[in-house]
Amino acid sequence: MKFIIQRDQLMDSVQDVMKAISSRTTIPILTGMKLEASQNGVKLTGSDSDISIESFIPEEEDGIVYVENIEPGSVVLQAKYFPDIVRKLPQKTVEIESDNHRNVTIRSGSAEFHLNGQDPEEYPQLPQLHTEDSFELPIDLLKNLIRQTVFAVSTSETRPILTGVNVRIEAGVLHFVATDSHRLASRQIPLGESEERLELPSIVIPGKSLTELNKILDDSQDKIDISVTENQVLFRTKHLYFLSRLLDGNYPETSRLIPEQSKTIVKIGTKELLQSVDRASLLAKENRNNVVRLITKEDNEIEINGNSPEVGNVIEEVIADSVEGEDLKISFSSKYMMDALKAIDYDQVKVEFTGAMRPFLIRPVDDEQVLQLILPVRTY
Amino acid sequence: MKFIIQRDQLMDSVQDVMKAISSRTTIPILTGMKLEASQNGVKLTGSDSDISIESFIPEEEDGIVYVENIEPGSVVLQAKYFPDIVRKLPQKTVEIESDNHRNVTIRSGSAEFHLNGQDPEEYPQLPQLHTEDSFELPIDLLKNLIRQTVFAVSTSETRPILTGVNVRIEAGVLHFVATDSHRLASRQIPLGESEERLELPSIVIPGKSLTELNKILDDSQDKIDISVTENQVLFRTKHLYFLSRLLDGNYPETSRLIPEQSKTIVKIGTKELLQSVDRASLLAKENRNNVVRLITKEDNEIEINGNSPEVGNVIEEVIADSVEGEDLKISFSSKYMMDALKAIDYDQVKVEFTGAMRPFLIRPVDDEQVLQLILPVRTY
Repeated sequence: MKFIIQRDQLMDSVQDVMKAISSRTTIPILTGMKLEASQNGVKLTGSDSDISIESFIPEEEDGIVYVENIEPGSVVLQAKYFPDIVRKLPQKTVEIESDNHRNVTIRSGSAEFHLNGQDPEEYPQLPQLHTEDSFELPIDLLKNLIRQTVFAVSTSETRPILTGVNVRIEAGVLHFVATDSHRLASRQIPLGESEERLELPSIVIPGKSLTELNKILDDSQDKIDISVTENQVLFRTKHLYFLSRLLDGNYPETSRLIPEQSKTIVKIGTKELLQSVDRASLLAKENRNNVVRLITKEDNEIEINGNSPEVGNVIEEVIADSVEGEDLKISFSSKYMMDALKAIDYDQVKVEFTGAMRPFLIRPVDDEQVLQLILPVRTY
Repeated sequence: MKFIIQRDQLMDSVQDVMKAISSRTTIPILTGMKLEASQNGVKLTGSDSDISIESFIPEEEDGIVYVENIEPGSVVLQAKYFPDIVRKLPQKTVEIESDNHRNVTIRSGSAEFHLNGQDPEEYPQLPQLHTEDSFELPIDLLKNLIRQTVFAVSTSETRPILTGVNVRIEAGVLHFVATDSHRLASRQIPLGESEERLELPSIVIPGKSLTELNKILDDSQDKIDISVTENQVLFRTKHLYFLSRLLDGNYPETSRLIPEQSKTIVKIGTKELLQSVDRASLLAKENRNNVVRLITKEDNEIEINGNSPEVGNVIEEVIADSVEGEDLKISFSSKYMMDALKAIDYDQVKVEFTGAMRPFLIRPVDDEQVLQLILPVRTY
């Protein structure tokens, strides 16, 4: 194997692929990164067996040459050293060569690295997915779907299924739902006409996979292709191939958690509510979950307060756009409230309460596609 | 006590003073920050008993009003909460008030914090230094003196005196020296005429104090006043008062460590040498101290190499400006070499060797005021 490649392109691909590589894997070869040169270009592969990522650098694209002097072949390099080496190379191009004994030489300018490569035959083959259950989304929309839901997955392994995001298509509508059983985040969007008749069975994608995918994808209107099989999901763009296992088991039915009626409705500026909850949380640190309290007042005002007996308290009156219905005193985790408000991309939100002990909803005033639900905290 | 103050000025002062406050102090009142309002302005104080910092915000300066409605008084606030509160206040001004029971109220816009203050009488009085041993430096020069030496102090408490930087004035020349006994960093500068006759006895300032001072000071041509007593040093600018204890004991005589003759002299670009040592160190990680090796070659070339038997090796030929004297193979800590090269603000350096087992010197080609010394590593 031999090729000369642009260092910056190589660095970008190495960084993407590294997202799948863990030094704590039980399969030694997976601590490495696979390099594969063909006449079309160079492919890098990393995997921790939950997530596998391939990044492809074409030999030439849009008239720009990225890889030259290619002699096809492949080798596995220790991922602990390779990224730092590439980052610190002195020249804009780098030559990578592997001999028959897998002695790998990396040359750039006057610097020459010799690394002991590993056998690419030992590296597991990634499955080639054959599926009809495939659909496309703009990349920036997928990133939004992830960002608005993935923070609400459970971090506890008590119920493993809750560590993932539930994804399904019903009647032409794509749903993303995450819950840790104390709060729920949901986002749905109608698919385009071409995909209207597509039905996707309910799947559960590990939260960690979606978080890593979101880091790798650059905001763009380009399309990403999503294919699903029984136990894997594949995200594919022009030069990226991101494969994740799915979580086993049935995702709980979440629609019945969502109250259909409300007794108190507060419409308020998202930023005003977020910042006052943030301030109130400063003196709620000693509490379990940084609990803060919301109290409805006269004249469309609400009070947000936090209290830490040893230290002091904070009280803030916030003027809402409107406060309708019954008076209310309710306590909740400031963290959950801030997470939910940050996930809503609208200036104004509607918070719908059904009493101090019932879950409440937060959503944009005029958009039913985003929904955040939080369970209150009993504080008496 | 009561005053209304500009939030941004308050925030800057709070951040400076926080550098002296540790949550791990054995004196409980020192986990707090002292606020003191007088008709001239507001003074904040923090201390961990090794370092004490006072920051003053004048009532008015250059026609800009920073503090208004002052009712003199003082109080101590828990430093764990106060900085976050100030940072997150909603308005550009904040009112701080303390009643007779030390209930402190912080108001900004519609937010109101109530904190339990502590008795300012319990807060230790900072000593008022009376000294004749005082001199001035431009702030940016002091920052350079610190930056070029402090990294070389010892981090081990085996010989506590080596955790500090030795400072002295002899014959109108100010010296800063630090060594951990494996390397030494030294910088000297001649003082101005007015201070020509000043003799400063050798003192040792804790490295940590200088590191914190360097963080607080902004690069500027303004002067900083330095006063020394038997066991303390005071750095004073217009609104800052930074007091540090001195280390007890005699600093070792370091001048005899510095070889007077050399057998091999390499003149080379600072950046070229730094980057090639950095690359060589990537494959020296498994070694003690990331040891790399330098070998002189023909035609003004040197070879830098690193070797990690399990992983591989790196070899780099660097073209020097000149290589004079005996042939040489020498091994040294890549970290010490990189620290030294980063501390030299010149494009070209001169490295003077006296054999593979003797300390070697690194200094700018045409400036004798900066000197870095490194002990080589025995590798056979």
